[in-house]
Amino acid sequence: MIPDHDTIVAPATAPGGALAIIRVSGADALSLCDRIFRGGRPLVQAAANTVHYGRILDGERVVDDVLVTVFRAPHSYTGEDSVEISCHGSSYIVSETLRLLIAAGGRMAQPGEYTIRAYLNGKLDLSQAEAVADLIASSTRAAHTLATNQMRGGYSEELEGLRDQLLNLSSLLELELDFSEEDVEFADRQALRETMERIGAEIGRLCSSFSLGNAIKEGVAVAIVGAPNVGKSTLLNRLLNEERAMVSEIAGTTRDVIEERVNIGGVLFRFLDTAGIRATGDRLEQMGIERTMESIRRAQIIIRLLDAQSMADGMAGPDPEFELGPGQRMLTVVNKLDAAPAKFQLPEGAIGISAKRGDGVDELREALRGAVDTEGLYHGDPVVSNSRHYEALTAARESLARALAGLDEGLPADLLSEEIRPVIRHLGEITGRGAIAPDEVLSNIFSKFCIGK
Amino acid sequence: MIPDHDTIVAPATAPGGALAIIRVSGADALSLCDRIFRGGRPLVQAAANTVHYGRILDGERVVDDVLVTVFRAPHSYTGEDSVEISCHGSSYIVSETLRLLIAAGGRMAQPGEYTIRAYLNGKLDLSQAEAVADLIASSTRAAHTLATNQMRGGYSEELEGLRDQLLNLSSLLELELDFSEEDVEFADRQALRETMERIGAEIGRLCSSFSLGNAIKEGVAVAIVGAPNVGKSTLLNRLLNEERAMVSEIAGTTRDVIEERVNIGGVLFRFLDTAGIRATGDRLEQMGIERTMESIRRAQIIIRLLDAQSMADGMAGPDPEFELGPGQRMLTVVNKLDAAPAKFQLPEGAIGISAKRGDGVDELREALRGAVDTEGLYHGDPVVSNSRHYEALTAARESLARALAGLDEGLPADLLSEEIRPVIRHLGEITGRGAIAPDEVLSNIFSKFCIGK
Repeated sequence: MIPDHDTIVAPATAPGGALAIIRVSGADALSLCDRIFRGGRPLVQAAANTVHYGRILDGERVVDDVLVTVFRAPHSYTGEDSVEISCHGSSYIVSETLRLLIAAGGRMAQPGEYTIRAYLNGKLDLSQAEAVADLIASSTRAAHTLATNQMRGGYSEELEGLRDQLLNLSSLLELELDFSEEDVEFADRQALRETMERIGAEIGRLCSSFSLGNAIKEGVAVAIVGAPNVGKSTLLNRLLNEERAMVSEIAGTTRDVIEERVNIGGVLFRFLDTAGIRATGDRLEQMGIERTMESIRRAQIIIRLLDAQSMADGMAGPDPEFELGPGQRMLTVVNKLDAAPAKFQLPEGAIGISAKRGDGVDELREALRGAVDTEGLYHGDPVVSNSRHYEALTAARESLARALAGLDEGLPADLLSEEIRPVIRHLGEITGRGAIAPDEVLSNIFSKFCIGK
Repeated sequence: MIPDHDTIVAPATAPGGALAIIRVSGADALSLCDRIFRGGRPLVQAAANTVHYGRILDGERVVDDVLVTVFRAPHSYTGEDSVEISCHGSSYIVSETLRLLIAAGGRMAQPGEYTIRAYLNGKLDLSQAEAVADLIASSTRAAHTLATNQMRGGYSEELEGLRDQLLNLSSLLELELDFSEEDVEFADRQALRETMERIGAEIGRLCSSFSLGNAIKEGVAVAIVGAPNVGKSTLLNRLLNEERAMVSEIAGTTRDVIEERVNIGGVLFRFLDTAGIRATGDRLEQMGIERTMESIRRAQIIIRLLDAQSMADGMAGPDPEFELGPGQRMLTVVNKLDAAPAKFQLPEGAIGISAKRGDGVDELREALRGAVDTEGLYHGDPVVSNSRHYEALTAARESLARALAGLDEGLPADLLSEEIRPVIRHLGEITGRGAIAPDEVLSNIFSKFCIGK
């Protein structure tokens, strides 16, 4: 991950499509491609942002007819001279073209290396670079909005503002040291406290947005809980299958990547594995129940599923016993309405469904969607979804609390300034603007990227 | 599949990459994209083959920052005005962009619809269009060469030449009808026979190239045959694993698509499932042996695997009994050389290996590769790999044989001409140049294409 000036090459598209794109970036990108590409005239003479038809050649052998797009520094993704080769999506053609590019002097890119160069060339800050990976992974409107907001600066500006204020305070405190024998206070302690408290409140607000941000990014965890045979699997399949059908209709693909994740109204929901709950002496079943209780603890939303038929017959077992944690929501859902007698009365506030026939499932879907408040997100409220940022914010908040305590204790200016410094450093880690992030941090961030990004 | 003038849209890349490409083609492609794209100036004013940076917008909401490439008729893949949108490879962004394009007046493309338009607009003939799909599917050098040759015209020209000769003959025969009362022969019967025989020989040569072409395209079928515990699975895993490691190294991906197919020296080999062979009364094992015998019948190459250890101990069972069919090759391979005594003598012509340690496996690989003769292919010999072409050629050959028999029987010119007509038609079916192929044929061919091609 140590920055160098190699010209890097990698496929930027997944295997299996009609087309594939190979990215080449670096000072020699154009001349390197000229060695294996024959079009109208050399690419080194081509204007920026132009497309050229020609052939990739291995000596005289034609590997493919391709379109080549030329970008020139600094107006490219990486900020370097770059070429995108659009070829037929054959695994042979892609690997041959990569082989030829490498033989011509290129090097295979590391995961995220294009984006790391964009960061090092000042095209993006760290937080924006991380948002690129989130954007690519986004499969719902909410995750997309989250990543887009972060990519367009998001809370980077806000954090930079807080950092500047703290830098000011710290400078004023350090100024006092130069005049320490005269016992002046450049930094009014009351104003200092107010500023630090305001900054603390803003950091706290960002921290608390993480539970929403993380849920949107990873999927809102839902546990479907109920006695055996109330129809938990039928309900899950109903939710999954309808979504699956929709996905394949829109994207025109039969690939199945959603597993137990469902996009409901633009938010990703993630259904946790649960077994039926009932009192039992059987050890195996007991283990299943342990797992269920663990799922309940991890869930943001719990669907308490009841069975109308058993309720009408007076045969319903005792309600599963659990307590809602802070921030958890519960929806009571009564299944098998189709098999219940006509006089059956839904309990107050419950949603009646027939998972088998699909009745009421739209209403349940709306209720699930309504249980996740994304309004602020869509109106541009900063929401933190990156756990690295969350950790830095938490560390900044703790350091700030220590600094405030020091202020209370009447700590002298030099020690107070020393307490403020880590707050500044932690906030700077998020955007990476204060100083180039160390290699270790960079490789941690970018190793999660895919090749070609 | 009925041709229309809709503007069609589809993703042209597989889901899961850093980038995705969406293709838009049709008379309204540029104005349609202008409705959802905001860049420097409208795309309808853009010059051909230029790239434009801008945003895909849903009203005022930004869906993505994209690069848009403009192609103008007839200089595009389809021959129509076309746009390629290069966006971030997120499933949400791709499906939103498609949704917006469809709302703006586009229609989702059918599989192969871009290529069907290229065919209808005279950019490709049918055989070349089919080669596009083969090219995309190609994973080895041989399959790539096969598809490339076919795409560059391949035997299209040769077939057109044969068709022209037959059309000439048929015209001459029909001319005789106009002069039928005068008993002239415009078509010299001896010259006619020679021409038809020459054409028949050429068609025959193309037909017989199909077994090589099909093997290259689908993978050369190999059966590893031997007594239980000679190391069949170990050998297969050795061949597969080395290839797998190589593939993931080159393509920088962990996706596994090769299963029991291996690229050896640029040719795809397909290993058939075989069970151990030995005399047995057990019914289940008997069924396994039936399956093995079936694999042996289907294989082009049979690896007869022996065990050096058992041979040295005099414990080797009787050799499996089977007869080689026409065109089948057998390689005798002795495994477990590492466990054999130093004085062990390899049988004449056998290859000694240790599948466990990997010794001799390179030699075996070379022998497999050597058993498939692709020299002619690499030097441009026409090789038929498409079963539709093979069927048409076979039908043409049969019709030609009937016409020749008619000639022998002294059939009058009108009946002879009628016998030659189906030969012309069958040859014309391959390139589709004689007349636009009927809808049924088109949908049969193009339904096998992927979306976006």
